[in-house]
Amino acid sequence: MKFMRVGSFGAEEAVVEIDGRVYAVGAALDGAFLAGGGVERVRAAVAAGELAEVSIDGERLGAPLERPGKIVCIGLNYRDHADETGAAYPEEPVVFMKDPSTVVGPFDEVMVPRASTKTDWEVELGVVIGRTARYLDAPADAAAHIAGYVLSHDVSEREFQLERGGQWDKGKSCETFNPLGPWFVPATEIDDAGSLGLRLWVNGTLMQDGTTANLIFGIDHVVWYLSQFMVLNPGDVINTGTPAGVALGHADPKPYLKEGDVVELEIDGLGRARQVMVQA
Amino acid sequence: MKFMRVGSFGAEEAVVEIDGRVYAVGAALDGAFLAGGGVERVRAAVAAGELAEVSIDGERLGAPLERPGKIVCIGLNYRDHADETGAAYPEEPVVFMKDPSTVVGPFDEVMVPRASTKTDWEVELGVVIGRTARYLDAPADAAAHIAGYVLSHDVSEREFQLERGGQWDKGKSCETFNPLGPWFVPATEIDDAGSLGLRLWVNGTLMQDGTTANLIFGIDHVVWYLSQFMVLNPGDVINTGTPAGVALGHADPKPYLKEGDVVELEIDGLGRARQVMVQA
Repeated sequence: MKFMRVGSFGAEEAVVEIDGRVYAVGAALDGAFLAGGGVERVRAAVAAGELAEVSIDGERLGAPLERPGKIVCIGLNYRDHADETGAAYPEEPVVFMKDPSTVVGPFDEVMVPRASTKTDWEVELGVVIGRTARYLDAPADAAAHIAGYVLSHDVSEREFQLERGGQWDKGKSCETFNPLGPWFVPATEIDDAGSLGLRLWVNGTLMQDGTTANLIFGIDHVVWYLSQFMVLNPGDVINTGTPAGVALGHADPKPYLKEGDVVELEIDGLGRARQVMVQA
Repeated sequence: MKFMRVGSFGAEEAVVEIDGRVYAVGAALDGAFLAGGGVERVRAAVAAGELAEVSIDGERLGAPLERPGKIVCIGLNYRDHADETGAAYPEEPVVFMKDPSTVVGPFDEVMVPRASTKTDWEVELGVVIGRTARYLDAPADAAAHIAGYVLSHDVSEREFQLERGGQWDKGKSCETFNPLGPWFVPATEIDDAGSLGLRLWVNGTLMQDGTTANLIFGIDHVVWYLSQFMVLNPGDVINTGTPAGVALGHADPKPYLKEGDVVELEIDGLGRARQVMVQA
């Protein structure tokens, strides 16, 4: 069961794929849908033959969720990535935010910002919140608040992030810097989100090849932890961190992204995306 | 001309006050309203006698804008505040983000987070974007992209912000941490946003008494600067920084906020707010 949104940017319509067939959902894939039992309602409607089958051949895929209320990101959350950037393992999660208006579709163009020389890639498991989470008692309470998962590309500009005044957000929120999708997959469809392979290629060369089993702070810990500092609302997305292999971790000259480069990325069970870099 | 939103949380209705009379606006005060000439349309409708006069006596005031798409904050942007925190003057604006779901009304309760011992106040001038800004050529282009101004309280938890893993966002996005209002005032109604007095009292004692004339990076510079790193969308809010006088700047024991404390704040021309602290 995979949810998608198809159509032109800002006018996408939700569809769901079950057993190789695609159906119109007839509702927005947003926080209210997730919190209100939308996933199970759609499953039942398909089983009852109540949803119309549609073709999405040739359609643009948008991000599989309506614009999230916020995107919270965890930094340095894979041991191998912390190693490659020369950073110590964090004692507790490093938290920063990304402008939700950076979300684009999985096959949309991604812009190298003007004046950028250090645009970098980061394949990440995106956790989608399904139920309001505040002050959870324990990591074991997290699962009940997770609606599902999405492939997320946390595009980053390293000079803006690290050399321009201290806080990372400046290098994380450039236009088009968060492709999402192709699919939103409900949590019930993923056996173990804690052992999914993540891979990313640049111009056909495999650059990242990790697994969520190497997360320093696991998914449940992250959701519980964040809920002590902020309210997680239905539809919010958590980018859980990236494994080793980003340009920043390479020897000089580092292979930062430039116009014309092609980034492909995938996570087991969450589909594959492809973005061409263009100059802003 | 002052816009307000009245009614229960999440169900506020927009009103406008002109020459001491209050009228129902009949539209949401959001980015589309600001970008689509809503302010001037309302002004014309009032002049033409087309809007119904209403009473808002006894009504709760909500934040005067629908939930912004993002809240971008500038840190250490007053010389006196940088001095009191012991920080060097930044060479360029320090940028961080705040969860937009932290926005509450100007007279709502503000929660001291659980486990917090360092909840602090920050009166700030909020700049409201009225027109999409990306890669502005110069600070002189900023004014055309500013819809107006709002009194903003950038409530902050200093331990979460500064002692818990590096990035500031963790101490800025706790529930209820961004009271806005009472008013949204269109830019055309403010003679010079670069010389407005800002004041904040805790339990009746004046703690902050500054002026936007002491901004290190002025409003136009900030809008131009941010537009090089992210797209500013209509309805987005920029918290431009706070003057000296926060609890963090005091000698030990610092007078951090606790349950029952009353914070009052105001900015010339933007009204006055009052929040009682409660325990989360």
